[in-house]
Amino acid sequence: MQPRERQKVVIVGGGFGGLSAAQTLADAGLDITLVDRRNHHLFQPLLYQVATAQLSTSEIAWPIRQLVRKRPDVTTVLGEVTNIDTEAKQVVLADGGTLPYDWLILATGARHAYFGHDEWEQFAPGLKTLEDATDIRRRLLLSFERAERETDPERRRALLTFVIIGGGPTGVELAGAISELAFSSLSQEFRSIHAGDARVILIEAADRVLLNFKPDLSAYAKRALERLGVEVRLDARVTAVDANGVVFGGQRLDAATILWAAGVQASPAAQWLGVEADRAGRIKVLPDLSVPGHPDIFAVGDTATITMPDGKQVPGIGDAAKQTGRHAANVIKARLAGDAKEMPFRYHHAGDLATIGKRSAVIDFGWLKLTGRPAWWVWGLAHIYFLIGVKNRIFVALSWLWIYLSGQRAARLITQGDTKENARLR
Amino acid sequence: MQPRERQKVVIVGGGFGGLSAAQTLADAGLDITLVDRRNHHLFQPLLYQVATAQLSTSEIAWPIRQLVRKRPDVTTVLGEVTNIDTEAKQVVLADGGTLPYDWLILATGARHAYFGHDEWEQFAPGLKTLEDATDIRRRLLLSFERAERETDPERRRALLTFVIIGGGPTGVELAGAISELAFSSLSQEFRSIHAGDARVILIEAADRVLLNFKPDLSAYAKRALERLGVEVRLDARVTAVDANGVVFGGQRLDAATILWAAGVQASPAAQWLGVEADRAGRIKVLPDLSVPGHPDIFAVGDTATITMPDGKQVPGIGDAAKQTGRHAANVIKARLAGDAKEMPFRYHHAGDLATIGKRSAVIDFGWLKLTGRPAWWVWGLAHIYFLIGVKNRIFVALSWLWIYLSGQRAARLITQGDTKENARLR
Repeated sequence: MQPRERQKVVIVGGGFGGLSAAQTLADAGLDITLVDRRNHHLFQPLLYQVATAQLSTSEIAWPIRQLVRKRPDVTTVLGEVTNIDTEAKQVVLADGGTLPYDWLILATGARHAYFGHDEWEQFAPGLKTLEDATDIRRRLLLSFERAERETDPERRRALLTFVIIGGGPTGVELAGAISELAFSSLSQEFRSIHAGDARVILIEAADRVLLNFKPDLSAYAKRALERLGVEVRLDARVTAVDANGVVFGGQRLDAATILWAAGVQASPAAQWLGVEADRAGRIKVLPDLSVPGHPDIFAVGDTATITMPDGKQVPGIGDAAKQTGRHAANVIKARLAGDAKEMPFRYHHAGDLATIGKRSAVIDFGWLKLTGRPAWWVWGLAHIYFLIGVKNRIFVALSWLWIYLSGQRAARLITQGDTKENARLR
Repeated sequence: MQPRERQKVVIVGGGFGGLSAAQTLADAGLDITLVDRRNHHLFQPLLYQVATAQLSTSEIAWPIRQLVRKRPDVTTVLGEVTNIDTEAKQVVLADGGTLPYDWLILATGARHAYFGHDEWEQFAPGLKTLEDATDIRRRLLLSFERAERETDPERRRALLTFVIIGGGPTGVELAGAISELAFSSLSQEFRSIHAGDARVILIEAADRVLLNFKPDLSAYAKRALERLGVEVRLDARVTAVDANGVVFGGQRLDAATILWAAGVQASPAAQWLGVEADRAGRIKVLPDLSVPGHPDIFAVGDTATITMPDGKQVPGIGDAAKQTGRHAANVIKARLAGDAKEMPFRYHHAGDLATIGKRSAVIDFGWLKLTGRPAWWVWGLAHIYFLIGVKNRIFVALSWLWIYLSGQRAARLITQGDTKENARLR
């Protein structure tokens, strides 16, 4: 099945999609270049735990170069892609360098989308990168520090008001974790503020949280959040976000910490190619995941929009990215072997999972629904299983065990930012 | 022994000195405020391991607030001290807030000193804070990434040249760890560069490294460094540092990464008080560690300079900071109990330790000298013992075990900095 000459495959993006493509292309006799603007692969499903001081950055991120060190056919490049020259068949990097390709896989992922309100980003950061997570961690912890020294009751109230916009899995997980941080972990360590002064508010525009789950699980998640002290506001649309708070449902709420978990926007891969994209910027790929008009280019994961036979979209989750990455790689292998058969991608949905704090979760596998503590254990074991490497599995499991037993979060560090600014009351 | 009224003690700085003072003042019936511009206590002896990607930030830093959570007499304040009003007896914070005191302990530590060449700092960062460590980690890892893509042999050579200025324990430890990173951990993961292309150069102005150790241990350390591939340059004075390299001993060396481990400068505590300081800015305290003219103010750790009866200075190490912090606290307790006896501080030097890579160390306890692998084990066990908390001891021990067995460093993350800038060839 080996091609007669070593063809060049460039994979842009070292996330779930790009890595699974690289893995599937092992032993295919190809010359593979894996390019990413970061040096690490990130296990995004646990990023909210870094943001809420439960895990350390290095527990959920691995150098891409290290992950493929046993693959002499893979060259790792740290580089920022700015364009694709489809005529010359090469990827163009920010520093002017180029990477020639015979086959190209775009696995460039997504960022937050603010639905036409990009000015909200500075006040309501989202959670996609390690820096996002340590930035949110700093904001959360600084709010408590500043509240401790604030004497004005209204200002103090605002400092202890935490708003999460968007009731999908990320929003639910953030709200649960922040609530636990506020009401239990931190409750004994301050002198002026008390756990009861804090408010955690989850705002969702739809009529239930976790829209992808079955309605009874959404209802369970809402109750579980409320048991943790989270105020869940449904049917509430945010109309303004600024440095001092949010407006939703016509009502103004003063809050020093506002987090965004409401929408994503694909990377500009569609613009690089000048091809059609949906509103979120995802490329409308053909059934085999190739880009229309470019049979040598594939888009996978959050870079592509794929409609399933039942009319639904393939969801923007890690498992879908892995499946699409693998499929694109298999199509390339078939084409190289001279096989021109149609290979439509078929998505297999394993299920939906979301945690609510450290003792509850909801799981919807279709054939199995779980809630509460059993769901949390399945969630925890599944995530440890999907982590890369023995060491990370051991460390994450130990970290969780420690938090569970002691209530103490390991990674409550305020880092970066200007220390003078950090140490100042707003 | 309790005073009749609750007197106020303010401790400035949550490092070794400040924390040990706070611990010694437990149950003294005092109203203690512990103020630091950072929210965490840092275990500085292992900071070089964060800089060289062996440990994660959260493994060597703990929220100060959490460390004193069982002490209702201690209030933790995140704040930047800018002055001390000795008339009104209050500490002044950057945001205009004040902390009144009856007794004041200054444990404000030190930063790097560039001997009148502050402009060198941007090219040759030093290692004092977590941000310093992740910044140096980014510089180190980016050098390899850039070298991998550099086609000009001279530029590539400069990118793989790592210079450490200063042959004290920090310089020796950095040089050993960087050498291992370059020659072993990273050797299999690159395609264009090879371990043999790297150079690690340790520059020391004196005629031996580890000046505080006995000469035979210095000689051993030099040989051990050279076995790891480090070029040790003695009697070499650095006369210029810029973005492209250093000049030492009249000779220019192109190097993209230059690290500073050559000198420290105390915090501006002496200026706040308007009292006499030595060249490094350390307050010349009285034998009981109080500040001349201010019997209610004490300076400890790197904030003070203390001459021992034999004419030597108390060294600027963590253990000395702990001992001085404890002593200042004991003097305050004695004064409160009405005891006006002279209480000169007596320093007990436990010993000097420094590691050279992950398999060797030198130890000088006076009555015992150790080198090589046995010294490494004593060093490792001692540092795990001195870490705070069970969890950190377990995690650091496991991290070291992992590196030892697998050769893989856990925390090889390039974070912060502009990704566009990071992903660009210089």
